[in-house]
Amino acid sequence: MDEKLVRAYERVDDLQCEGLRLIQNPKGFCFGIDAVLLSNFCEIRKNWRVIDLGTGTGIMPILLAGKTHAKEIWGVEIQEEVAEMALRSVQLNQLEDRVKIIHEDLKNISKHAKDYSFDAVISNPPYMNPGAGLINPESMKAVSRHEVKCTLEDIISVASKLLKDRGHFYMVHRPHRLVDIIYLCRKYRLEPKKIRFVHPNKNKKPNILLIECVKYGKPELKFMDPLYVYNEEGGYTEEIHKIYGRDHDNK
Amino acid sequence: MDEKLVRAYERVDDLQCEGLRLIQNPKGFCFGIDAVLLSNFCEIRKNWRVIDLGTGTGIMPILLAGKTHAKEIWGVEIQEEVAEMALRSVQLNQLEDRVKIIHEDLKNISKHAKDYSFDAVISNPPYMNPGAGLINPESMKAVSRHEVKCTLEDIISVASKLLKDRGHFYMVHRPHRLVDIIYLCRKYRLEPKKIRFVHPNKNKKPNILLIECVKYGKPELKFMDPLYVYNEEGGYTEEIHKIYGRDHDNK
Repeated sequence: MDEKLVRAYERVDDLQCEGLRLIQNPKGFCFGIDAVLLSNFCEIRKNWRVIDLGTGTGIMPILLAGKTHAKEIWGVEIQEEVAEMALRSVQLNQLEDRVKIIHEDLKNISKHAKDYSFDAVISNPPYMNPGAGLINPESMKAVSRHEVKCTLEDIISVASKLLKDRGHFYMVHRPHRLVDIIYLCRKYRLEPKKIRFVHPNKNKKPNILLIECVKYGKPELKFMDPLYVYNEEGGYTEEIHKIYGRDHDNK
Repeated sequence: MDEKLVRAYERVDDLQCEGLRLIQNPKGFCFGIDAVLLSNFCEIRKNWRVIDLGTGTGIMPILLAGKTHAKEIWGVEIQEEVAEMALRSVQLNQLEDRVKIIHEDLKNISKHAKDYSFDAVISNPPYMNPGAGLINPESMKAVSRHEVKCTLEDIISVASKLLKDRGHFYMVHRPHRLVDIIYLCRKYRLEPKKIRFVHPNKNKKPNILLIECVKYGKPELKFMDPLYVYNEEGGYTEEIHKIYGRDHDNK
């Protein structure tokens, strides 16, 4: 069965979590630490309905299906080829009953989902401002990295529409976009409640931002202790080992 | 002369900077690490006109008069008794030609200063939300700590009016108000450009926030490396020693 699901130019990665696996195209955008950190940061409760905006390879819905007791997890992806690959990863893991991949522009998600119908929205969106750097707007990597197909405001406004009252929005992003993120979240009534900064090590400024917002939440922001990726010897810190799973280094 | 300027119930502190001294009332709000960090964080250029909103004891104008070549530094303070004490500190340091203390509600500062007339606005405002905790609104400490006489929005809107185009706004505050700060700064066209978080030590979340905004600045936020106050042995870190001045420990 596996052979039928995987194309010759693709590879299958072991996600080090509940035996889950993921199909990736080495020439496309492959998941990195951001997805792993986000899946660890978000607190998804039993029977929740969750949607991932810009799911790419489907890494987030598949990881969360393994880690949580969410009832349903949707992943929306605009690139047909990528959405189709994500769907095959869902089949590879036999998660079709809980994970649904939708090939659609997230701005048109109302064709598929009602407003106020999700308990949590998650996103690991493109980081770069439109126009930042030279890009080929048709390339798969560009769509995953740059805001060519959707802006940060699209993601935040759609997240707000999809969430129930008091629903949770979780996002991983870059610290240099913090002002836009906070301004837009409050504009669309997603009140930032928790921030965690991830630093390469204890002496460096943060390079990854994890944020939790609550729809119509009361203004009160909490900071978590910083997360450091590398220790003084250049190896992973204990917390990163824990997040990746104990076996990570033994492979 | 000094004796005439200092009341019996007051004390005079050596600021460890250019021989500057400050009169404080031990029963009132005394300056702390925030003022020292802010005076170190802000970059005041030669011949600038600077104004400190809510100057209290006058610590910021007096420190900046010693550390920078600003042409003029104003301090605005709503509490008459405190403003009068700040004025005596200015006289004690013979800084009357560069430092001006104004006893006024900062919301009425247009009585004294034209819009668009300052190169930099600085502030170390009250941290607490109005209504947070039980307070006596008439007490000097409460006015310095809580937003009873002015809100964060008052400070940011007044700062924006006072600043020239591309003028700089520097503030020290608390991380849990970051969302309000960023939202209001952008609302009043003070674009956040630089943030530095101050942590008690390397394993703790930040408890002080330093922010620089530029009026009509282009959106692009930079983070500075984190500043840690204490090292692993419980003493000050090297950077804090440097900020406080080499002699700090020898006193």
